[in-house]
Amino acid sequence: MTKRQDRQHKEAPALTRRGLFLGAAAGGLGAALPGAGHAGSAEPMTPAEAMSDAANPAMHLEYPFYSAADETAPQAGIETPPQRYTMFMSFDLTTRDPRDLQVLLARWSAAIGLLMKGRPVGQVEPERTAAVGLDTGEALDLGTAALTVTLGLGPRVFGPDFGLADKRPSHLRELETLPSDALRPGLRGGDLSLQACAEDPQVAYHAIRDLARIAKRTGAAATRWTQMGFGRASAGKGQETPRNLFGFRDGTRNIREAQDFNQHVWVENGPDWSHGGTYQVVRKIEMHIENWDNAQVSVQNAVFGRHKVTGAPLTGQHEFDAPDFARRDAAGSPVIPVDSHMRQMAHEENDGVKILRRSYNYTDGLNAVGRLDAGLLFVSYQNDPAHFERLQRRLGTSDALGEYVSHIGSGVFFVPPAPKEGSYIGAELFG
Amino acid sequence: MTKRQDRQHKEAPALTRRGLFLGAAAGGLGAALPGAGHAGSAEPMTPAEAMSDAANPAMHLEYPFYSAADETAPQAGIETPPQRYTMFMSFDLTTRDPRDLQVLLARWSAAIGLLMKGRPVGQVEPERTAAVGLDTGEALDLGTAALTVTLGLGPRVFGPDFGLADKRPSHLRELETLPSDALRPGLRGGDLSLQACAEDPQVAYHAIRDLARIAKRTGAAATRWTQMGFGRASAGKGQETPRNLFGFRDGTRNIREAQDFNQHVWVENGPDWSHGGTYQVVRKIEMHIENWDNAQVSVQNAVFGRHKVTGAPLTGQHEFDAPDFARRDAAGSPVIPVDSHMRQMAHEENDGVKILRRSYNYTDGLNAVGRLDAGLLFVSYQNDPAHFERLQRRLGTSDALGEYVSHIGSGVFFVPPAPKEGSYIGAELFG
Repeated sequence: MTKRQDRQHKEAPALTRRGLFLGAAAGGLGAALPGAGHAGSAEPMTPAEAMSDAANPAMHLEYPFYSAADETAPQAGIETPPQRYTMFMSFDLTTRDPRDLQVLLARWSAAIGLLMKGRPVGQVEPERTAAVGLDTGEALDLGTAALTVTLGLGPRVFGPDFGLADKRPSHLRELETLPSDALRPGLRGGDLSLQACAEDPQVAYHAIRDLARIAKRTGAAATRWTQMGFGRASAGKGQETPRNLFGFRDGTRNIREAQDFNQHVWVENGPDWSHGGTYQVVRKIEMHIENWDNAQVSVQNAVFGRHKVTGAPLTGQHEFDAPDFARRDAAGSPVIPVDSHMRQMAHEENDGVKILRRSYNYTDGLNAVGRLDAGLLFVSYQNDPAHFERLQRRLGTSDALGEYVSHIGSGVFFVPPAPKEGSYIGAELFG
Repeated sequence: MTKRQDRQHKEAPALTRRGLFLGAAAGGLGAALPGAGHAGSAEPMTPAEAMSDAANPAMHLEYPFYSAADETAPQAGIETPPQRYTMFMSFDLTTRDPRDLQVLLARWSAAIGLLMKGRPVGQVEPERTAAVGLDTGEALDLGTAALTVTLGLGPRVFGPDFGLADKRPSHLRELETLPSDALRPGLRGGDLSLQACAEDPQVAYHAIRDLARIAKRTGAAATRWTQMGFGRASAGKGQETPRNLFGFRDGTRNIREAQDFNQHVWVENGPDWSHGGTYQVVRKIEMHIENWDNAQVSVQNAVFGRHKVTGAPLTGQHEFDAPDFARRDAAGSPVIPVDSHMRQMAHEENDGVKILRRSYNYTDGLNAVGRLDAGLLFVSYQNDPAHFERLQRRLGTSDALGEYVSHIGSGVFFVPPAPKEGSYIGAELFG
């Protein structure tokens, strides 16, 4: 072989045995892996085939946007097992006319219904091409990718401008100032929120981009702040607990069961129309990962109250072992430190309060002094934002993790139930 | 059913028939889709299973970092069919001692070899936990994900400081100032480059983060500029042509065949050690997507010389139809406008010059005036950076696309061949 042929030969790596073995071991799905399916025929997938949308079942998942006529259902993107990627954006209302808000909610809902089916929000290339495209086109070939778009209404929607005060969800108000706050002016609040989650970030980006375009065209709302998340940092039922950028499993004790959703997430009081909705809290949390990386791992473990690699509580061996908050070491100190994150957040220590976390890792590249600029787009759902405040006030005061994080962005929104086919999110507010 | 049960019922969307049909149609892999494989047993995958690493064959792809003892091979990440995600970072050397550079290249190479096997660069949780972790841990459970890390050497490596001038690759020098330049001081240059590409962005981020840590610990280099890319905007052999954030297919005429790699990409002149390497040009290209979205699609089509949806040249019906640059319309004007991007870039109009493009879409969120801040991390490989300059000088002068883009970041690097097992990238420079 010539040197050139050698190079081309290197061009064709195959699915390794090790890779296939890992797949089979991790999910018991080995037999269904395309590579494994071809094993008998000695025709392994090419890398291009393995990387195609066709080979990844997650790219074909489709969630319903509308609820059935005879049920009240939450919007998708809350109970939904967290997809890998997110694009979050909040908006300021630029109108005082409730009809403008109504039109925007109706147009957004219609568009979200299309997007979640993998369809463009309108023609990409109109037949009369001397027109502006209604859809920007970058997701044309990408399929559904498990897209969900979740829409929230901020406190000002129910303020004096729009005459909707009597429809205000009981607990919707601005968040209190919290001890961890280092909020930046450009990353605060918003009157409306959109969170797109998907198995392809380009699908999520496209959804938010085209919804922001619709907002601009209606003249009802303008962009306020946004964040893309590149890795899920929360698990739903049946999912492995992912890791945050501190390298720790995040959310081992997160809500997963229906009874917890009913008890802690879905709203059951206040105006009728709000029942079955929930409150969304969004925090952009900067993580000082270079400082963190310089901390001893024993310190890191004490900060979380868990072992870094296994995720086990410091009193246990396995991730899901129940933490023993009472156990003390030979010196008489609690094995799970009093100021550890797990203990501070534990429902056992907070009158049973639980919140659903649905967060994402993000990076903003490098900061002004050349350090890695990264963190967590924290998103929680609960039936009262006071539950978030209670936990966060405690964390901000006495949590060992506080030294390594800054809360730089914040928003709170009420997320109405899903609309019925033919209607739109928040329709009950009007008429 | 009660209302609560209804909600839980909504919780369990299944792989839709539509989704499975699309999968089968797109890649002929329908029979190998896990969902389809389960069809007979009436046990569809749950969404959590469909979204797991186990179900996605791309997460198990593993590329070799080292070349075999008897061959010269390029580094991975050039011919490799583009993975979905990238993390690029450039570095400034902070030493004048060639031994420091040597140590850094050796340590980086060893670490990259581990990372591409899905292994941490060192212990995450040392047994002696009163130590700092060698690996930051956030990719521990994520597998190989087709990771490649490609390392480049900037012009200053061969400048007066290090005594390596006689080893300088023949064409390595700073890029000329180009008419499209709007370069920002913080996004220029760099003495070393690392580009991680993977099917999971957290795997790519982790690789760059831990390599940057190694650079800092050796004291040899400091971070300069970085960019994450969230969607591949170039295709390799066997891959569908993806779309950039203008919504157009990008790179239909990109290099795919071995003879083009040999003729246009791999270096065959200059010092022996540089043979089989290539030159990497990186440009951060801001795309004014909100302006673009307000342009008529007929204008957009004329700017690219292609139809937006199909990607066909304006003289053809299908994406891969050969463009007919000579054809004129009834009024006598070229159907593919003289200033269209495709025509300006065409090898037919540039003495046969071709470059390999391997670019990624990015977003930086919103800019200072609330507009979507997004663009293309353009990466090209060629056996002479002058080929890039030639094309870009022409584009910057007379390309219709120029109105909608700004080149804000730039770097040029020589990418040595892959090391042999037991050696490291650039070993031939020392000793």
